[in-house]
Amino acid sequence: MAIVFTGYGSCIPEKIVDESAFLASHFYDDKGVPLSLPNEKIIEKFQSITGIRQRRYADDRQVSSDLAFIAAEKALKQSGIDPETLSGIICAHNYGDIPLGKIQSDTVPSLASRIKHKLNIKNPACMAFDVMCGCPGWVQSVIIAKQFLENNKNGKFLVVSAETLSRVTDPHDRDSMIYGDGAGAVIMENNNDENDTSGIINAVSKSFTDHELKYLYFDKSYNEKHEQDIRFIKMKGRKIYEFALKNVPMAMKECLEAAGLDIKDIRRVILHQANEKMDEAMLQRFFALYKEKHIPDLIMPMSIAKLGNSSVATIPTLLDLIHNGEMPEYAVEKGDILLMASVGAGMNINAFTYRM
Amino acid sequence: MAIVFTGYGSCIPEKIVDESAFLASHFYDDKGVPLSLPNEKIIEKFQSITGIRQRRYADDRQVSSDLAFIAAEKALKQSGIDPETLSGIICAHNYGDIPLGKIQSDTVPSLASRIKHKLNIKNPACMAFDVMCGCPGWVQSVIIAKQFLENNKNGKFLVVSAETLSRVTDPHDRDSMIYGDGAGAVIMENNNDENDTSGIINAVSKSFTDHELKYLYFDKSYNEKHEQDIRFIKMKGRKIYEFALKNVPMAMKECLEAAGLDIKDIRRVILHQANEKMDEAMLQRFFALYKEKHIPDLIMPMSIAKLGNSSVATIPTLLDLIHNGEMPEYAVEKGDILLMASVGAGMNINAFTYRM
Repeated sequence: MAIVFTGYGSCIPEKIVDESAFLASHFYDDKGVPLSLPNEKIIEKFQSITGIRQRRYADDRQVSSDLAFIAAEKALKQSGIDPETLSGIICAHNYGDIPLGKIQSDTVPSLASRIKHKLNIKNPACMAFDVMCGCPGWVQSVIIAKQFLENNKNGKFLVVSAETLSRVTDPHDRDSMIYGDGAGAVIMENNNDENDTSGIINAVSKSFTDHELKYLYFDKSYNEKHEQDIRFIKMKGRKIYEFALKNVPMAMKECLEAAGLDIKDIRRVILHQANEKMDEAMLQRFFALYKEKHIPDLIMPMSIAKLGNSSVATIPTLLDLIHNGEMPEYAVEKGDILLMASVGAGMNINAFTYRM
Repeated sequence: MAIVFTGYGSCIPEKIVDESAFLASHFYDDKGVPLSLPNEKIIEKFQSITGIRQRRYADDRQVSSDLAFIAAEKALKQSGIDPETLSGIICAHNYGDIPLGKIQSDTVPSLASRIKHKLNIKNPACMAFDVMCGCPGWVQSVIIAKQFLENNKNGKFLVVSAETLSRVTDPHDRDSMIYGDGAGAVIMENNNDENDTSGIINAVSKSFTDHELKYLYFDKSYNEKHEQDIRFIKMKGRKIYEFALKNVPMAMKECLEAAGLDIKDIRRVILHQANEKMDEAMLQRFFALYKEKHIPDLIMPMSIAKLGNSSVATIPTLLDLIHNGEMPEYAVEKGDILLMASVGAGMNINAFTYRM
């Protein structure tokens, strides 16, 4: 008897952006100095570190809440519930709706309200609000919905996330190649069958705001000739890597232990798709914390090579791909234990365990 | 045994903006037609409808998270708790941090993370995230914190809200005179004394996203000669008035009834400071729903005449003014029942009852 996901959905935009989009870029470093390597070499190095060969960008006419709506509609359909019976809609994002060519975030009304409108849900008792928590925003929203559902056994939540990072990237920063656009959603309900142990087992959330506060931040272009009044998403990649490697595996272990589980119990580890090498290093460090040398094959599904880092959308997108049979080698079965973990701006880390 | 507020704080910026700031304005209507009345008459009419004679604007160097920090620090101090023992910080806002002269909202990292940093709280177990829900965002954040605290009897939350609407107002729209800047905060904890019935009794939340979706929205200046790429907060005042009058009193009654209380039990009604005439009309309609002709004196404290509409900040600011003895005629005593209610972009309505 726990809180279960009864529907999954995602929106993977159709527009594929590969390296050819960056061959003519003028990249600078964070001191404003042009990078000396030719772009082919910069991209090759980037690909070897991040594992990202392609990313998806939203259609020119779409904004985040449009992607979220597509993901939400799929999740609702799969759950089979009457949308009018939802008690709440939570939308995780970080930049609101940014129409192409604009630099202002549109956040009023909330994206959750826009999604509810597009879903044509009329019931005023279905509350809609947004959560901002960096890339871990979707996991955090799942944790928030869990609190409501523990206090209302008949409640039902749509937890959706969406981001169009392509609208806030500096064209002169090679880190911009990391980001993609996307959305993911789940429907959450109480499993009121006392003999069924499926569902969320437990969760942990952490927030590191000391010197870590601005590892991800908003600032002007690396190219000083670019309009200096426009700000973009910026990251201190090396710092994030070190921070994540130190703290994420510990948070994952803490979560697993609090669930009364061992590392051998895990069927899949689903990490925020931040960077392939970083995710692999976190997984190794996690296993090392248990003095476990053997990492089982196929334990960690990855989508980053083709989808890039779509912020809040990566984990629910992966869950949808797995549940809808699009990653058959990572299929899960009743009773399997999943461990989800995310890290991002804040700096925030959160994780939860789930029994299928 | 319920969830209580153990500390209150607010930030009322020092900069007073009165009618003199608008005497030289060039106001247009929503069709782009210059208003024909002289500004003195426009302002006089505005004051008679809204009751707003002054509003406060943040200092030029401050952003929303700076105001929030000031309110949060006061609330923490009053509560007497060790800030390191907080389990969470929720910050309600709608536009992030907007430095003066900029048009982009800065939302990464979250404002809650920035506030935690400024409070110098190191404990990673204190989770920080933001909530966007229109003007009702602070009440909604109280409701979210309540869920966490019901599931964690030893938890403590800082729920803070801040907005600098002065940074998103169209200088050519007379509605801009409504808005002010500010911040408010409370500390929430479980009152674990079984013999004490103080605290939140119950709450309701509603979201109307049909034709109401864009009663508050983001759009270009009413003056077509103004930079058309910059968008501002916009409202359909008449529609909001009609919507609020129809739906807020009903939500208040629903909340009160679910609490098992009668209108005669209420000591104070604390409404979102949207517009004086609208708040008075809502109060009258609320009493009319109970066929109650007599509205007790001093039942509804108002701050709008001097502070304007500071969005998410109005209710916690009023609570702080009352609790800190700055509105002695509205003082409350142990056992008094308070009814809080808010309405705003979404369109969202929420309310909660509180026993002192």
